[in-house]
Amino acid sequence: MFKATVIVKRKPAILDPQGKAAQQGAKLLGFENIKQTRIDKFIRFEIQVDEISQAEEELKQYCDKILTNPNMEEYEFKLEQF
Amino acid sequence: MFKATVIVKRKPAILDPQGKAAQQGAKLLGFENIKQTRIDKFIRFEIQVDEISQAEEELKQYCDKILTNPNMEEYEFKLEQF
Repeated sequence: MFKATVIVKRKPAILDPQGKAAQQGAKLLGFENIKQTRIDKFIRFEIQVDEISQAEEELKQYCDKILTNPNMEEYEFKLEQF
Repeated sequence: MFKATVIVKRKPAILDPQGKAAQQGAKLLGFENIKQTRIDKFIRFEIQVDEISQAEEELKQYCDKILTNPNMEEYEFKLEQF
């Protein structure tokens, strides 16, 4: 069994409205030193297989088909056996 | 100047509808080995101050007042000078 951690980030050119909203809130509350807020996704799940090669294959399919939009986002992942 | 990375997670008892939706999608597409998907936030920003103690103070205020709901979420952070 593996624990998977995936960070999904919008590509740098893609607008991040949630980050923009937080950034504007920072400004309104007077946090003038805080800049460039980006809000992306931190995803965790388990993969119930024995082989790391199979875990990696299933993780990539899950990311490509469900967790990310490959046109707008990119991802990095970590797998940890348990 | 510091680069901040904050991971905001819903507390374990709090329902995660986005994670549930992804998990259901996994099931529909036949990824039967994938379980327990949780989708949380990965947040990055810059803090334009010189002292790490001040950076940490501003980060905590930003997290407590804007980035998180302390009743439902918890966070961990990393600060890196650049």
